[in-house]
Amino acid sequence: MRLERDTGEWLKGSGPESDIVISSRIRLARNLQGYAFRTKLAPAARIALEQKLHEAIDAAGLPEKVRYSRLDEFPEVDRQYLLERHLISREHAGGEGARGVAVTASENISIMTLEEDHLRLQVLRSGLDLDACWTEIDRLDDRLEEHLTYAFDPELGYLTACPTNVGTGIRVSVMLHLPGLVLTQHIERMFRSIVRISLVVRGLYGEGTQASGDFFQVSNQVTLGQTERQIIDEFKQFVPRIIDYERKVREKLLTSDRERIEDRVSRACGTLRSARTISSAEAMEKLSLVRLGVNMGLIPDLEIGAVNSIFINAQPAHIIKRAGRAMDAEERDVARARYIQEEMGSN
Amino acid sequence: MRLERDTGEWLKGSGPESDIVISSRIRLARNLQGYAFRTKLAPAARIALEQKLHEAIDAAGLPEKVRYSRLDEFPEVDRQYLLERHLISREHAGGEGARGVAVTASENISIMTLEEDHLRLQVLRSGLDLDACWTEIDRLDDRLEEHLTYAFDPELGYLTACPTNVGTGIRVSVMLHLPGLVLTQHIERMFRSIVRISLVVRGLYGEGTQASGDFFQVSNQVTLGQTERQIIDEFKQFVPRIIDYERKVREKLLTSDRERIEDRVSRACGTLRSARTISSAEAMEKLSLVRLGVNMGLIPDLEIGAVNSIFINAQPAHIIKRAGRAMDAEERDVARARYIQEEMGSN
Repeated sequence: MRLERDTGEWLKGSGPESDIVISSRIRLARNLQGYAFRTKLAPAARIALEQKLHEAIDAAGLPEKVRYSRLDEFPEVDRQYLLERHLISREHAGGEGARGVAVTASENISIMTLEEDHLRLQVLRSGLDLDACWTEIDRLDDRLEEHLTYAFDPELGYLTACPTNVGTGIRVSVMLHLPGLVLTQHIERMFRSIVRISLVVRGLYGEGTQASGDFFQVSNQVTLGQTERQIIDEFKQFVPRIIDYERKVREKLLTSDRERIEDRVSRACGTLRSARTISSAEAMEKLSLVRLGVNMGLIPDLEIGAVNSIFINAQPAHIIKRAGRAMDAEERDVARARYIQEEMGSN
Repeated sequence: MRLERDTGEWLKGSGPESDIVISSRIRLARNLQGYAFRTKLAPAARIALEQKLHEAIDAAGLPEKVRYSRLDEFPEVDRQYLLERHLISREHAGGEGARGVAVTASENISIMTLEEDHLRLQVLRSGLDLDACWTEIDRLDDRLEEHLTYAFDPELGYLTACPTNVGTGIRVSVMLHLPGLVLTQHIERMFRSIVRISLVVRGLYGEGTQASGDFFQVSNQVTLGQTERQIIDEFKQFVPRIIDYERKVREKLLTSDRERIEDRVSRACGTLRSARTISSAEAMEKLSLVRLGVNMGLIPDLEIGAVNSIFINAQPAHIIKRAGRAMDAEERDVARARYIQEEMGSN
């Protein structure tokens, strides 16, 4: 797999509220009528179904050029690479057996085949743009349905492998960058208010992952008893309140604690520009401060799109793909420091 | 008191072994016959003696221009300033009552009056140069003796306020920069071998101070039963062994751990060049790594004399003198970061 572009379209750093909302994402879980759920499929039946799904995706006529990849034929580093780009889930990267993913050229759309469900459709957008995600994924869903018959129950809605997805099969999420709330220790309070309205906070790579570098993924929990529109509207009401909260805290930091914040941002730049070796976790932590600094107007010579791009490209599999050869963790840390300095300059 | 020069001659970073030995220092403790020790002097008698000592120093005809200052008339910041330049002791800076210090233009010689003893003569030299220190201080001692009668006992030698100085009244010391031994955790072992031969390890500002930033002052403990020459010769035998040890460790670091050491040095530069506020302790710790880096050839654009100068000028009283106004600790930390970036460049 070649490295075709630096980042997906959805990371370009534009779109509404993109200083705080990195991206919006909607995914739909779908299964085919007349087929067992994935875990109950015999290997041969699974291979045949994977083939059928691949053909349906090709036939659906997606709006952009699509590349379909069989993950079970992929080396681990390539699966990790797709995971780091948020195009497949952790489970899909690590799983076994016939399975694949279709990705559009812009990386705005990805379709996983035989993940937990037969199909997982995903649409990503830069910034806060859930309506655009919904319009696109709804159209995608319709196009696929012209070639496939979904398992649908008039009472329950779409049937899914895990009961938590039954109904709409929808998961709406936004990736938020909330360094202000973390710095001022307001983040826990914000989390409590999120949980109270049945939303879930997760780390950068979804379920079971830790939030790191001040990035948080907020998504819905309930898929049953509400329409897709209701779920999206709930998000559209709540996310601006988080954004406001983060913005107010940033403003307060700039007036009451400007020196400390400038110091932390400037030191983060200094470390990124001078380290000869840097771990993924430290790079992310420092880049988070740099991203905050750019958005607060403290670093005039960097653009937010460039910072977003470094975030993605500094991850382990991206560093390896870039080098074009196997590397252990120590070598990666050295290559990461070099890559960051190519992008941000060095001391 | 005006800031006349950036650093004393003894900090210019030249002289033998100056990559490891910052400076060599000899001091002599002397008291006058017919006068009580300082602690037993009535205030009026003390004022008269201070005057007499000042006149004797003026009359002695020192090799350079001398400035004599009455410390009891000095504001605290100016006393602190002299302490940071190693021209007076902590006790002399903090004491009370009539007392003074004579300092030559190069700052190679200082003479404290009415510190613990009536007179404390000190000669400093850059690098390892105890013979030069001895020649100079011996001549200075002779010149002063032409105008003063020292308290001397044929059996005991020079009489001093504290029994630990009786005899020669000499203290020989070298200021060592041993970051290699600290990084590789060999420093404790080295300390044990120093103590075994009756030498003492102290911090940067002598007795009762903690070693910081990898700097250590090694001095003799015994002043009785040995001649000055024997004490100096013992030093001249032992110090090269410490130097060898530190050099071997540095070489080993460069071969077996080059990446880690380059990373630490480069990050220290990065922090010094990017911090918007920095404490004295952090500056010293980072400058120590920078000094190591310069001596290991890892930082081509900095000279050791410049680093030595920053060490002195980044200290609290120096920052205040430079600004020409009172500053609290927070303001100093901001001014310190700015000063360092004027000298080292910024990100």
